[in-house]
Amino acid sequence: MATGKINVSVENIFPLIKKFLYSDHEIFLRELISNATDATLKLKHLTSIGEAKVDYGSPRIEVKIDKEGKKIHVIDQGIGMTEDEVKKYINELAFSGAEEFLNKYEDGAKESGIIGHFGLGFYSAFMVADKVQISTRSFKEDAEPVLWSCDGSPNFTLEPGDKQDRGTEIILHIADDSTEFLEENRITELLNKYNKFMPIPIKFGMKTETLPKPEDAKEEDPAPTQEVDNIINNPNPAWTKQPADLEDQDYKNFYRELYPMQFEEPLFHIHLNVDYPFNLTGILYFPKLTNDLNVQKDRIQLYQNQVFVTDNVEGIVPEFLTMLRGVIDSPDIPLNVSRSYLQADGAVKKISSYISRKVADKLSSLFKNSREEFEQKWNDIKIVIEYGMLSEDKFFDKADKFALYPTVDGKYFTFEELQEKTKETQTDKDDKLVVLYASDKVSQHSYIEAAKAKGYEVLLMDSPIIGHLMQKLETSKEKVSFARVDADHLDNLIKKEDTQISKLSDEEKETLKKNLEEVIEDKSYTIQLEAMDSDASPFIITEPEFMRRMKEMQQTGGGGGMFGMGAMPDMYNLIVNTNSELVGEILNTKTAKKRERLISQSIDLARLSKGLLKGEELTNFIKRSYDMVK
Amino acid sequence: MATGKINVSVENIFPLIKKFLYSDHEIFLRELISNATDATLKLKHLTSIGEAKVDYGSPRIEVKIDKEGKKIHVIDQGIGMTEDEVKKYINELAFSGAEEFLNKYEDGAKESGIIGHFGLGFYSAFMVADKVQISTRSFKEDAEPVLWSCDGSPNFTLEPGDKQDRGTEIILHIADDSTEFLEENRITELLNKYNKFMPIPIKFGMKTETLPKPEDAKEEDPAPTQEVDNIINNPNPAWTKQPADLEDQDYKNFYRELYPMQFEEPLFHIHLNVDYPFNLTGILYFPKLTNDLNVQKDRIQLYQNQVFVTDNVEGIVPEFLTMLRGVIDSPDIPLNVSRSYLQADGAVKKISSYISRKVADKLSSLFKNSREEFEQKWNDIKIVIEYGMLSEDKFFDKADKFALYPTVDGKYFTFEELQEKTKETQTDKDDKLVVLYASDKVSQHSYIEAAKAKGYEVLLMDSPIIGHLMQKLETSKEKVSFARVDADHLDNLIKKEDTQISKLSDEEKETLKKNLEEVIEDKSYTIQLEAMDSDASPFIITEPEFMRRMKEMQQTGGGGGMFGMGAMPDMYNLIVNTNSELVGEILNTKTAKKRERLISQSIDLARLSKGLLKGEELTNFIKRSYDMVK
Repeated sequence: MATGKINVSVENIFPLIKKFLYSDHEIFLRELISNATDATLKLKHLTSIGEAKVDYGSPRIEVKIDKEGKKIHVIDQGIGMTEDEVKKYINELAFSGAEEFLNKYEDGAKESGIIGHFGLGFYSAFMVADKVQISTRSFKEDAEPVLWSCDGSPNFTLEPGDKQDRGTEIILHIADDSTEFLEENRITELLNKYNKFMPIPIKFGMKTETLPKPEDAKEEDPAPTQEVDNIINNPNPAWTKQPADLEDQDYKNFYRELYPMQFEEPLFHIHLNVDYPFNLTGILYFPKLTNDLNVQKDRIQLYQNQVFVTDNVEGIVPEFLTMLRGVIDSPDIPLNVSRSYLQADGAVKKISSYISRKVADKLSSLFKNSREEFEQKWNDIKIVIEYGMLSEDKFFDKADKFALYPTVDGKYFTFEELQEKTKETQTDKDDKLVVLYASDKVSQHSYIEAAKAKGYEVLLMDSPIIGHLMQKLETSKEKVSFARVDADHLDNLIKKEDTQISKLSDEEKETLKKNLEEVIEDKSYTIQLEAMDSDASPFIITEPEFMRRMKEMQQTGGGGGMFGMGAMPDMYNLIVNTNSELVGEILNTKTAKKRERLISQSIDLARLSKGLLKGEELTNFIKRSYDMVK
Repeated sequence: MATGKINVSVENIFPLIKKFLYSDHEIFLRELISNATDATLKLKHLTSIGEAKVDYGSPRIEVKIDKEGKKIHVIDQGIGMTEDEVKKYINELAFSGAEEFLNKYEDGAKESGIIGHFGLGFYSAFMVADKVQISTRSFKEDAEPVLWSCDGSPNFTLEPGDKQDRGTEIILHIADDSTEFLEENRITELLNKYNKFMPIPIKFGMKTETLPKPEDAKEEDPAPTQEVDNIINNPNPAWTKQPADLEDQDYKNFYRELYPMQFEEPLFHIHLNVDYPFNLTGILYFPKLTNDLNVQKDRIQLYQNQVFVTDNVEGIVPEFLTMLRGVIDSPDIPLNVSRSYLQADGAVKKISSYISRKVADKLSSLFKNSREEFEQKWNDIKIVIEYGMLSEDKFFDKADKFALYPTVDGKYFTFEELQEKTKETQTDKDDKLVVLYASDKVSQHSYIEAAKAKGYEVLLMDSPIIGHLMQKLETSKEKVSFARVDADHLDNLIKKEDTQISKLSDEEKETLKKNLEEVIEDKSYTIQLEAMDSDASPFIITEPEFMRRMKEMQQTGGGGGMFGMGAMPDMYNLIVNTNSELVGEILNTKTAKKRERLISQSIDLARLSKGLLKGEELTNFIKRSYDMVK
């Protein structure tokens, strides 16, 4: 048996790195700035522990484009490298200096925010450059400057450099297929995307600042201006601070920084801050949400030590919370691994349930401490909470105590309060509480009014997923059912012991039914004679709750026509109030033609009330009505 | 000046490969099966040119799970490797045997479909396995079997093997964090995703097949069954064949293979087949499309030599065609590079415009050769064509000749035909052709009827982007404008020389206007007295075209409330037909109360006709109307 070691030659691996190190070539800038940041943070750590005897000062990182020379420069004022260090760290592919540094300076170094891991970032420069130079000078006393050059062949040269001050300058000679990166706009875009919140100030170009006018200036004199360095990042973003050090306005300002194009203020925020059993900081915001579930995802940004990683947090944040906005920063989330792996990873699962818990706690305390404000915001946030109640049982248990059920009159009840409020009036003879609701105040107006006239509370339930939530409530609560106000006439929706007495004899009812059936040809209407209050509507069209809800859930719940199932047919009941004056008149009209006209017009009005009179039928109705007006 | 070569040590690079070679670990299986396919295709090529003196036979690839032993086996019957070849190809990371093969056998080898490129695929095994073995035997005469084992350390052992037949078997000892891949379902899922159309048959498990009953079987005897190999792939998918060899049914069957859960048949297909200046094959299908632009993307699958790569073809297929379905297979599309690079890449641009052209040509020939069928399918495909006309000028020029404009009566005109048909009746006094349209046949019924009564054609334009398309047509055609039927009354929409004479004197008009203004408090209605046909509606509510279209485009065109702009206010005109009998009656009614009732009821009817009478107002209208019925 022979043994050996797998061999790797730089000639084979280098071309791969140039092509495939990152699927997105633009990453090179993020990587080089991360290295520059690490070089600076290392110096900071060394000066803080007294190992570097230099003045740390206020170092920054500079990015420069030399469009004519086709070059990009990334310059830091960090520790720099001696010739030996260049040989050690640069000439050895995939050897991580950051890792080594963290191992060497264990105490405190972990909190220094050093980013590097794998010693590959620097080589990403070759994805966009056909020649890369490093001009560097170590912070160490008497260190000589060094110039390293490599055309990606992978041969390099090393010679004395001319760098005057400490730090490292990376010079990229941009390749012909990557000239997009010589555009100022493109670099600004990248800096904004990846580096906006990195911990060392980053200068890119200059900007003009207006100065105060000198005291002796005349009014017509223009205010003086000066060119100043343009710092593109905020090195101390809100999420890295302690909640105690931040005012409400600071959170709002940070939201504006994150989403400069969003003019609406967030409703409230949740500051995440945990360091055991995992490290996580961040701020989540509840924006105003609409009822459209699809368009508002991918707004939470994931960072690792203040470096932007992705805005796809699927698997890390519970799905129902991906509608929120904000940032999450954690060195503990494994990157670049498959989504299915993420979902199975224990640490990630813990992070996800921590976030879910924090959100529930925040909502709960808002509910307890400022109920009025919570009510005002409810309609803008309910979709998240309802979605969460459906998808996580733990969240349901917590949210059940603060989830609100608004009425059509703008009152807000918790479910418990609703039960308390309505149990006297809305419990039916089988001891079941019937919760009445409308999905639209306008189109269901006449039905809502009828229910209110009986002293019932009518909820306004208009979320797209409310059907599913109602079902969950019906199964998790005892003796509760939901019914839309137009699902049947009220005496049937909430059946009491007492029954109305019909003015009509059984024989009269027979005749009435025959009369009606002669006129109504539409088979989707089932005629139902009911003895109701004499001043209730003479005709009401209702749509049975169960069928309607099934249809709605088929539409929102997915799966719709997938198995070749067509849409379910429309089914309506035509409730005829046998005690109404008009119905009495119909029964007493002997001329068939006049009776027919009475019935048609009445049914048209009932259909109009339910929004079913449309198109040609409506045009004809209006024509007929104009004639009647005259 | 010192020179040197960047160094890479396998100890540093190996851990990175295990973690990061692919962002999705599941890729390992695709890579191993690609290698197995290449080994088989190489043998095929060598036998075909006489260099291998063995019987090629009907080789296949087998995938086996050994759940208990925590192993996955991938077995091929290809060329196999000698000990020297193992040393050369396996022990050298990132050395591509496929590349070498293609270089060596230039002629014909390129068409052999060999997949490998970078010599990395095999190492992806270490993403999921903590030990990998290769048991192989070359096709060469007297070749000795070899067994290579590596625990990823990266040390390996090489010893005599026991493989009896030619080919290679890869044995993965699955790591503890990757046991998901020992599940049969998971492997089936991966094979279906990545390998469904690879060119060598792939066996995974067994299945039971029903055999014909023997002739002497009794009726009650169950049909005999037998276990047969389960081949998971179709090695000769439709797109690899010549269009001339395929029937319409073959395309439909292939659609079913691609989308087994789709029960609806595609409307038609486009076979792509080009080998200069780039290589591309594929089949695109037009499915039935709805008007929802967002939900139907990401259905086209991209393959490279029959290996699935991605279903995100953004940048490769023109955006308006991403709503189609089907497959594209091209070895010329650079993978793993950034999307922004893709969009700038010349070859990719050519591919994109080739696809766009082919689609336009297909539609054009369908239009010419089977107009009736094209009309029937129009409503299911129009969204793609309209979107294309908006986004690509070249496509607009072609589609302008076959794009259809359906009328509310189900006729279909091209724009040229429409111009021809309507120029007599619908050209106004300024020589401008006014195209009338409705966006909804039901809610705009009364307006449509009025236009038809005048002999006008009314188009049904109901796509979400139709407003943008109309604007494009108005600017690209001369003297054409679009007006919705309810944008004004018809004599104003298409102004002719002849004017109607009003029955009312100027004084009477003054009085009428005053009467109306006393009753109508709503400031969003502008009263407009018009002398119209006496039997036209007495009152009509219209909504000016320009304002309405701006509002609609604000809603669909993005940017909506972004800059803090609220929704634009509703603006309506109340057209009063001074020649109608009812208006005459209103003018002659002296009792203020009665006049007020006449006006209110009339305006309610006009609002009802425009869909503006809702909620409480509708409830009150219905109550009043019930009283009037009695």
